[in-house]
Amino acid sequence: MPAYQAPLRDFDFVLHELIKVQDIIPTLPGYEEATQDIFRSYLEAAAQFCESELAPLNRQGDEEGCHYDSSTKSVTTPPGFKEAYQQYCELGFPTLDCDPAYGGQGMPKALSFPIMEMQCSSNVAWSMYPGLSHGAYSAIHAHGTEAQKAAYLPKLVDGSWTGTMCLTEPHCGTDLGLLKTRAEPNGDGSYSITGTKIFISAGEHDMSDNIIHLVLARLPDSPKDVKGISLFIVPKFHDDGSRNAVACGSLEHKMGIKANATAVINLDGAKGYLIGEVNKGLSCMFTMMNAARLGCGMQGLGIGEASFQGALAYARERLQMRSLTGDKCPDKPADPIIVHPDVRRMLLTQKAYTEAGRALTTLLALQLDIEDKHPDADARQDAADLVALLTPVAKAFMTDNGYEAANLGMQVFGGHGYIREWGMEQLVRDCRISQIYEGTNGIQAIDLLGRKVLMDQGQKLRKFTKQIHKFCQANEGNDKLADYVAPLSKLLKDVGEVTMGIGMAGMQNRDEAGAAATDYLRLIGHLSYAWLWAQMAEVAHSKLGGGEDGFYQAKILTGRFYMTKLFPEVHSLLAKLKAGAKPLMELQDEHFAF
Amino acid sequence: MPAYQAPLRDFDFVLHELIKVQDIIPTLPGYEEATQDIFRSYLEAAAQFCESELAPLNRQGDEEGCHYDSSTKSVTTPPGFKEAYQQYCELGFPTLDCDPAYGGQGMPKALSFPIMEMQCSSNVAWSMYPGLSHGAYSAIHAHGTEAQKAAYLPKLVDGSWTGTMCLTEPHCGTDLGLLKTRAEPNGDGSYSITGTKIFISAGEHDMSDNIIHLVLARLPDSPKDVKGISLFIVPKFHDDGSRNAVACGSLEHKMGIKANATAVINLDGAKGYLIGEVNKGLSCMFTMMNAARLGCGMQGLGIGEASFQGALAYARERLQMRSLTGDKCPDKPADPIIVHPDVRRMLLTQKAYTEAGRALTTLLALQLDIEDKHPDADARQDAADLVALLTPVAKAFMTDNGYEAANLGMQVFGGHGYIREWGMEQLVRDCRISQIYEGTNGIQAIDLLGRKVLMDQGQKLRKFTKQIHKFCQANEGNDKLADYVAPLSKLLKDVGEVTMGIGMAGMQNRDEAGAAATDYLRLIGHLSYAWLWAQMAEVAHSKLGGGEDGFYQAKILTGRFYMTKLFPEVHSLLAKLKAGAKPLMELQDEHFAF
Repeated sequence: MPAYQAPLRDFDFVLHELIKVQDIIPTLPGYEEATQDIFRSYLEAAAQFCESELAPLNRQGDEEGCHYDSSTKSVTTPPGFKEAYQQYCELGFPTLDCDPAYGGQGMPKALSFPIMEMQCSSNVAWSMYPGLSHGAYSAIHAHGTEAQKAAYLPKLVDGSWTGTMCLTEPHCGTDLGLLKTRAEPNGDGSYSITGTKIFISAGEHDMSDNIIHLVLARLPDSPKDVKGISLFIVPKFHDDGSRNAVACGSLEHKMGIKANATAVINLDGAKGYLIGEVNKGLSCMFTMMNAARLGCGMQGLGIGEASFQGALAYARERLQMRSLTGDKCPDKPADPIIVHPDVRRMLLTQKAYTEAGRALTTLLALQLDIEDKHPDADARQDAADLVALLTPVAKAFMTDNGYEAANLGMQVFGGHGYIREWGMEQLVRDCRISQIYEGTNGIQAIDLLGRKVLMDQGQKLRKFTKQIHKFCQANEGNDKLADYVAPLSKLLKDVGEVTMGIGMAGMQNRDEAGAAATDYLRLIGHLSYAWLWAQMAEVAHSKLGGGEDGFYQAKILTGRFYMTKLFPEVHSLLAKLKAGAKPLMELQDEHFAF
Repeated sequence: MPAYQAPLRDFDFVLHELIKVQDIIPTLPGYEEATQDIFRSYLEAAAQFCESELAPLNRQGDEEGCHYDSSTKSVTTPPGFKEAYQQYCELGFPTLDCDPAYGGQGMPKALSFPIMEMQCSSNVAWSMYPGLSHGAYSAIHAHGTEAQKAAYLPKLVDGSWTGTMCLTEPHCGTDLGLLKTRAEPNGDGSYSITGTKIFISAGEHDMSDNIIHLVLARLPDSPKDVKGISLFIVPKFHDDGSRNAVACGSLEHKMGIKANATAVINLDGAKGYLIGEVNKGLSCMFTMMNAARLGCGMQGLGIGEASFQGALAYARERLQMRSLTGDKCPDKPADPIIVHPDVRRMLLTQKAYTEAGRALTTLLALQLDIEDKHPDADARQDAADLVALLTPVAKAFMTDNGYEAANLGMQVFGGHGYIREWGMEQLVRDCRISQIYEGTNGIQAIDLLGRKVLMDQGQKLRKFTKQIHKFCQANEGNDKLADYVAPLSKLLKDVGEVTMGIGMAGMQNRDEAGAAATDYLRLIGHLSYAWLWAQMAEVAHSKLGGGEDGFYQAKILTGRFYMTKLFPEVHSLLAKLKAGAKPLMELQDEHFAF
């Protein structure tokens, strides 16, 4: 496994030089203590934990996987996982951004997000145990009664209990309207829940004293579609320590994240407690889903970073062929492969996507904090709108790019990349699921174009593009940003036209939006990244001469690489979008194969 | 595992309607009997074998893998593999395109290639055992002495012996100039060979009576670079049945192709026999390498087809959400996912790449047959030039597209795609190696742009583009091909300019070619595919009204999909190429990370 070193310098750059969270976070009520120094000390502690505890467990976790004992219906996690989780709790990490009213430290997401990234880089399968728990915490915190909060949150916050999200059933994933799990009122306010849930991440394990399942189910008299789904709290153990009728039926055998227990969860008249209103389960669950989608994007980001680190180390060490422009290391039998342009292309692609992704998630984390705490309602709304718009972008664009980065890192290793012991192919396998779960990337694209842009008459999008417009105007004569301003301005114009075009075409034929969605999402992804790279370049130019020219030059040159070698994807995206839905729809279903 | 059904109708289309091998093959000396009927009967027999024998072994082969016994240094292949190989030999498949002088049936590659594709679709790990063997056959056939041919070929041809290619060593893969394996003359004409080879596919197994290793090694007084490498035949068993000092030291644990034994081969003074001239080993090995590269491309193709079939079947069955344009199956709880534009995008991408790849490989197979048998030297040269030019394209473009297709197929399955039992993720893992071995795709790109185009002053390229020019001219006013002719003509012009530009820039800075290579290869890939799709559309239009309109309409519409939704990648490729090498080279090695 490539050794992981947390990119602390880059976190510092993104947090405090680019996004400048220190100017905003401590002004938000409740975050007064979250100063730059506090950020640094937390990030250093998390880096230490991820580098020395989580990363070393990653390879063996993949080889060993989780073990299911059918006689006890229990799951054993790979060696060291439980101990690492215990240490994680002792260090107080689960409490980090949780509500102080329930034992949390009340830190902002701008701090917890980079820590999540480090966990994903070092051991994504492990990171999902606390990750899902945090989702359960959020849903109960947002929708639970006071009694439910008092009963469940302290233990979820301190990590002694963990949580899950139980949505998917064998016949329905994306289309939750089809779900069959039944919840029958017991008469005492509780419900008796029966059904089968699949693909339940962290669904059963040996790391915590109790597991709080959040389960979607349908009441007997509820509508038979998405409007008839309610959300229930179903604890593995009752208050009195006795076992609830919810159990793991088996574990899935998967391509990757093998150390995370992906469980079939059988509910056999399990006792559950309604959370939120009857028939409003889906919107309650979406409290978790949005956070989970950003968490997914973070998996793409974190794995991209880990793969970059592995590939860079290998490219500096592996001697193979000579540079085309003459020997670079004449004293060695061959040059290190980092001299070869195509190897540099792969490394720079990883680097450019990863650093832009880090900037995007940090920006979004700050918006989440503003949405949560800002005293001004307009500021909260603006932040919420940006988060709503860019969450599907962060999920899909970052996981697609992360998967590409992981594949490129493996490619840098050549044949060795295909061998398990090097750990590079595990990153590919572990990353692959992030494009699928929490709503496939195709669903993200429809969420972006359909719900977030078209159904909103482009309001959120305009708020976002206006910021980019302003940036372009402010920098129109700025030679240092010449690589950015013209392409960004052009893309803004193109995005406007394309959006309008899809909107118009979509009124005639709704398939137009469905057909455009995936390309459209990548277009908005590049718009976001180019804007972020422009800002990173602006910051870097302003810091030159201060003693860290290597670091800032790297930002400037990586940004230039991005604009010249990755951003041009927009040309083909625009051409594909122009072709509309017809080429996708005109072939009859029965003529796909003969 | 998705059930595999050989695409016999499409083979027929490509062979006999598009490339029209029946007009040429039987006119070549030695292939008189290879008529259209013969093709059909062989393809049907092979389809039967692949569908009913190989495909059912694929999933278990992946789960079981190969087992190494360190006490006997022997390898056991997964259950059924040996028996399937035995049946394969009994059916005469190994002899198919081999020289009748050594027991072969003397059939053309235009016939053996589609059979290879079927093997790759149904069980790529298994297909590598006979595949590598065929490579060893080719090298001995091309470079062996009469005595060597007599000694080894009959057994390799009938399949009772198999062969390997032993090139890679722990410290060198791409850069074979670094290889250390020593060959010391024994004084009796034989050599004593010592060294360690890694990543030896089909390197040790229980399927054949003997394994003939072809080993690259260096004589004591040979130059210490690529000009000092010789090729040796190193049999596992000597003539007298005693064991040679060549043995499997271990098996690699890999991401995929787990049922193929990827062996570490230790040579400990093993007796070997020089094949070809001293110090000309690399060029002898390239006889195998070129075939192996096309074989690799075929893996991308075959896996893409298998994944398409799996995804299509699933998309027709899986009910999830309603069509955006209204219920398509109101009697069912939801519509099959094939109604959704984004699912169709994924299926059509698989289909368009796969069918174009099939056309390209069939075209190349025919050129190989012409190169081999045509009485006219110019015709042979033209064919050889086209094969030389397009072999790296077939290898890299088809494996990259095959990997994309496999990933898309998995994506169509959603979460189920990530679960091993469905078999879709195995296709992703099995395909991934094809982008790496037999020369990484980056190396293919440099081979294309450097050796095949620039070092040749563009002669081979011009021969190829002239054909496309002619096609465009002939169809200038053809409304039915309007979607093709203008973009193809434009791309021809662009390719000419880009090639010239890189050539000029490369004279100042050789990194320019290295930096352009990967994008350039995809550009030539799209040029080839667009030209082939245009021809397929032309054929299809001419056949409309003959009773198979569904099939031919599908060709026309898939071609249109290709031109509007995949071909536009050329826009971004051209933009990236225009940016040149600088963005890749200007970041200092030590500034890649901080």
